[in-house]
Amino acid sequence: MRFGEATNWRMETQLNEQIAGMAIQPSNPTEIDADIVFSALPADQAVGTEEAFAEAGFTVVSNASAHRMDADVPLMNPEANFNHLKLIDEQRHKRKWDGALVTNPNCTTAVLSLSLKPIFDTFGLKNVVMSSMQAASGAGYPGVASLDIIDNVIPFIKDEEEKVQRETQKILGDVGHSAGFNISASCHRVAVIDGHTEAIFIQTVRPSTSEQVVDCMAEFAAEPQKLKLPSAPTRPIIVRSEQDRPQPRFDRNEGRGMSVVVGRVRKDPVFDGVKYVALGHNTVRGAAGCAVLIAESMKSQGYI
Amino acid sequence: MRFGEATNWRMETQLNEQIAGMAIQPSNPTEIDADIVFSALPADQAVGTEEAFAEAGFTVVSNASAHRMDADVPLMNPEANFNHLKLIDEQRHKRKWDGALVTNPNCTTAVLSLSLKPIFDTFGLKNVVMSSMQAASGAGYPGVASLDIIDNVIPFIKDEEEKVQRETQKILGDVGHSAGFNISASCHRVAVIDGHTEAIFIQTVRPSTSEQVVDCMAEFAAEPQKLKLPSAPTRPIIVRSEQDRPQPRFDRNEGRGMSVVVGRVRKDPVFDGVKYVALGHNTVRGAAGCAVLIAESMKSQGYI
Amino acid sequence: MRFGEATNWRMETQLNEQIAGMAIQPSNPTEIDADIVFSALPADQAVGTEEAFAEAGFTVVSNASAHRMDADVPLMNPEANFNHLKLIDEQRHKRKWDGALVTNPNCTTAVLSLSLKPIFDTFGLKNVVMSSMQAASGAGYPGVASLDIIDNVIPFIKDEEEKVQRETQKILGDVGHSAGFNISASCHRVAVIDGHTEAIFIQTVRPSTSEQVVDCMAEFAAEPQKLKLPSAPTRPIIVRSEQDRPQPRFDRNEGRGMSVVVGRVRKDPVFDGVKYVALGHNTVRGAAGCAVLIAESMKSQGYI
Amino acid sequence: MRFGEATNWRMETQLNEQIAGMAIQPSNPTEIDADIVFSALPADQAVGTEEAFAEAGFTVVSNASAHRMDADVPLMNPEANFNHLKLIDEQRHKRKWDGALVTNPNCTTAVLSLSLKPIFDTFGLKNVVMSSMQAASGAGYPGVASLDIIDNVIPFIKDEEEKVQRETQKILGDVGHSAGFNISASCHRVAVIDGHTEAIFIQTVRPSTSEQVVDCMAEFAAEPQKLKLPSAPTRPIIVRSEQDRPQPRFDRNEGRGMSVVVGRVRKDPVFDGVKYVALGHNTVRGAAGCAVLIAESMKSQGYI
Repeated sequence: MRFGEATNWRMETQLNEQIAGMAIQPSNPTEIDADIVFSALPADQAVGTEEAFAEAGFTVVSNASAHRMDADVPLMNPEANFNHLKLIDEQRHKRKWDGALVTNPNCTTAVLSLSLKPIFDTFGLKNVVMSSMQAASGAGYPGVASLDIIDNVIPFIKDEEEKVQRETQKILGDVGHSAGFNISASCHRVAVIDGHTEAIFIQTVRPSTSEQVVDCMAEFAAEPQKLKLPSAPTRPIIVRSEQDRPQPRFDRNEGRGMSVVVGRVRKDPVFDGVKYVALGHNTVRGAAGCAVLIAESMKSQGYI
Repeated sequence: MRFGEATNWRMETQLNEQIAGMAIQPSNPTEIDADIVFSALPADQAVGTEEAFAEAGFTVVSNASAHRMDADVPLMNPEANFNHLKLIDEQRHKRKWDGALVTNPNCTTAVLSLSLKPIFDTFGLKNVVMSSMQAASGAGYPGVASLDIIDNVIPFIKDEEEKVQRETQKILGDVGHSAGFNISASCHRVAVIDGHTEAIFIQTVRPSTSEQVVDCMAEFAAEPQKLKLPSAPTRPIIVRSEQDRPQPRFDRNEGRGMSVVVGRVRKDPVFDGVKYVALGHNTVRGAAGCAVLIAESMKSQGYI
Repeated sequence: MRFGEATNWRMETQLNEQIAGMAIQPSNPTEIDADIVFSALPADQAVGTEEAFAEAGFTVVSNASAHRMDADVPLMNPEANFNHLKLIDEQRHKRKWDGALVTNPNCTTAVLSLSLKPIFDTFGLKNVVMSSMQAASGAGYPGVASLDIIDNVIPFIKDEEEKVQRETQKILGDVGHSAGFNISASCHRVAVIDGHTEAIFIQTVRPSTSEQVVDCMAEFAAEPQKLKLPSAPTRPIIVRSEQDRPQPRFDRNEGRGMSVVVGRVRKDPVFDGVKYVALGHNTVRGAAGCAVLIAESMKSQGYI
Repeated sequence: MRFGEATNWRMETQLNEQIAGMAIQPSNPTEIDADIVFSALPADQAVGTEEAFAEAGFTVVSNASAHRMDADVPLMNPEANFNHLKLIDEQRHKRKWDGALVTNPNCTTAVLSLSLKPIFDTFGLKNVVMSSMQAASGAGYPGVASLDIIDNVIPFIKDEEEKVQRETQKILGDVGHSAGFNISASCHRVAVIDGHTEAIFIQTVRPSTSEQVVDCMAEFAAEPQKLKLPSAPTRPIIVRSEQDRPQPRFDRNEGRGMSVVVGRVRKDPVFDGVKYVALGHNTVRGAAGCAVLIAESMKSQGYI
């Protein structure tokens, strides 16, 4: 079967004919001819299948949640923890495989952790409270029923808060260590197609002003930018000064969906820190785009 | 001109013919024959007009923000601070009025402060972080443009966060005193017709568990319930145990729009407190319904 | 299992506890103790099951499409074809049943046929063109994916146009005869929760003006009104004179969802007839409410 | 004042800095230095202002409705009536001006008339019935209130049906003559950002089958394609064979918003003709894009 027949294509760009013509193959390492395998398997099916590919020598970049918290599996948001790639060496040594298994974060975590990275590096983080307004596309297709979301908000996304809380700590921590701050998330679904909006309240270890936080975010660049990786946005974090931005419909495609757009950076009276709003494209920065950037990062470091 | 001609009626209930036939009168105390005046004036026009009515002996219950923080003006959310009515005595004495001027809270504050009241009474409050997902009707008509909210979130509502932060403190404090906890709000507009949803994270003064917080909310009743005031809901706070409630479309009309519906009460890892989601009907509990309940409360205490 | 456990209740009214406590029973005539059976089975499961109940002596009122076009099965929209009830006598005689099988129309047909009835009776109908804007609830739950309908229109509903075209003819025709006009439908799904809106263009047999059409619709009443059946709306068709009505959110609950609301009756330049917009609640007039009114109609005529 | 300050930019593409920096000038021919003037004035302000510019020698391409039906003003949808450009000669002669005033059609008309053009040329048209589902952006900004369109349909757009009915006749007719078919429109607003969807039912003069209509549409190309004008889409009409297309969110950007996408071409039982669904981008093909294509057409013929 061809991909064009197997898929129910629901994108605003038309399906490319060459891609539509690609043959669907079983998820079996012996039948696949590829250097890199991108896994979008459901979590329960990812277990076993992904390891089998890595053991067979494939580089597996996975969007599944199954292995994200495994101690020897890098959980990569490249601008936030490029150095975690070195965990691949340990993984290969320990598991005695030539391939590799690397994961990308949950979509909400991808946006949050990237926005926090320059603040964490500059001021340290003590407490993070995050309340999300997430897009319907995060639930896949058909996903969220229209009868559930038109004129409505769903204040629950299964396992999402737990993922955000633990993954953010792993990404921002040193290899093998949690970042060690407190974090609390409340996750909600709203009537938006693409783009997760997050209201973030933080307490830093060292004193920080809104201006300082804006500056460290706006100036932030990391290895993917320095290496000019093809999918790396010029500016990983774009800070807007308008009082009513970011907004999903107008900002989600910044950096071809790879930039996080931040706005409303202002003083927070509870933490004597700052609060701000961050937005990122959940299926690009939060999924497929991040996976591709991970593969580019791995290639740049000789892991592929 | 008749009310039916002056208004662009945009409600899901049809306009009552008797009300449609009422004559529009100038906002002049000498031309109005009434016991109670409900003010829905814009803040700048409320200044002066509302005082003129109170001075002329009218009981003014105002939905305008202009006088909410005036020291001798009660800011009433009746189940949360019924005892603040006594401030009317001071107001009358000081201003030498026979009438009175009482205000209701901002819509977001009305929901938040009611949900916090039993927790505040039982455990004390140290820190409150609130992130809202507010309905379009909060901006009036025509209000929010469809081009701004379809497939979008607007992460800004003018002056809203400041109102929520200060009004909540006045309502929950003793007469003349702020409640004295820290509070931070981030306010956002979503594609919902009616019903404000709020993600709330709290730290209590005395230790509290999720179960204890659920219990004190579910059992909460106040003077309006004891006095069986006509607009008082049987249960001011309804706690739901489903993992995905409250939701605006399904819960906003509870208690004829006067109940706040709470769900997802769970442990908060940042504050070692609880987090929960609260929902209330912004134009009923958060505006007109609250104003009527205030008037009923005043009448019950002999102020009208 | 109890109904409250079996159902995923997605209504704006809370599930009544008594109903929630009712036991789910197999669809087997020998295990059901009831006078009337309302069938909401999928079309393929309705075949056989519905007949088994009717044969066992039950009165079956079905919302399924399976038997609507059967020659000896009444397809009832009570105000439009009350006299079709007499087909039950033929059905019982032919099938040797004590029970009966009666069907209600497709939701779009229910609205269209009721709006056409007084025009058909007064002026005759030669041509009918109908273009619909249908609510998501018509597809059931979960039904229409939010990713398919937010910021979108779906210009296709499987089998809907065929149903509308043939069912309307059966309802408005004499017993056993098609009504004999030409009819063409184009059916579309829009981002509305409840309420089907239909743009209707008609050519009458005898000359008709907009005013005459408005009059015959506004004055229309039929047997359910004369018999004051409990579910019959006082006015089956409500004609509004505002230039921008009917609208689903504001008009769908008229007559407790049983009235069809018509507006914009105006001259049609193609047919030298009239065009108008009709709206009805698809899950009340177009489904459950119509089924109950059918049962009430049957009882009034001694068929139950 | 700069354009960037004067505008409330609400587009999904960011405002280009060069354009943002352009100075706002009064609408006075003596102060403007340009070859072509695009007018987006309200109809009442277009009267007089547009003539003044044309008289002063400017080529005015207007999106305003004011002059569309003037006998000596071309109403251009370039692929549908390229030859109407010659009316400029008559206009210049009669009005004794060096400039020119040319108009583009109403947005709904632009989509309809382009889809009808190949059918009209091939089979002739006798009757056209059109029912639209129009996007919010057609009403400008702020335009449609969110409280009017969320979970709703507005079955009325002021003057729209009259515009569609008369403009389509002018465009498809010979210069100075109406096309001479009957046409009836019913126009409705739905919760879509961009893209007008139209259900179209037609009777042709000469017999036509669905297959023939599909063929003549799919093969259609006109002067703008032959001249390879920069804004001309390769295929002015794209016919899709899926049963559920076109859909605004997925098809509105075809041909960079300049193509009309047609689907569901099928037999119509009323007219013994065909019915189909057409979709076009209302602010591109239906407004700005069409205006630019008109200017390109004029330049290609030496009128600029």
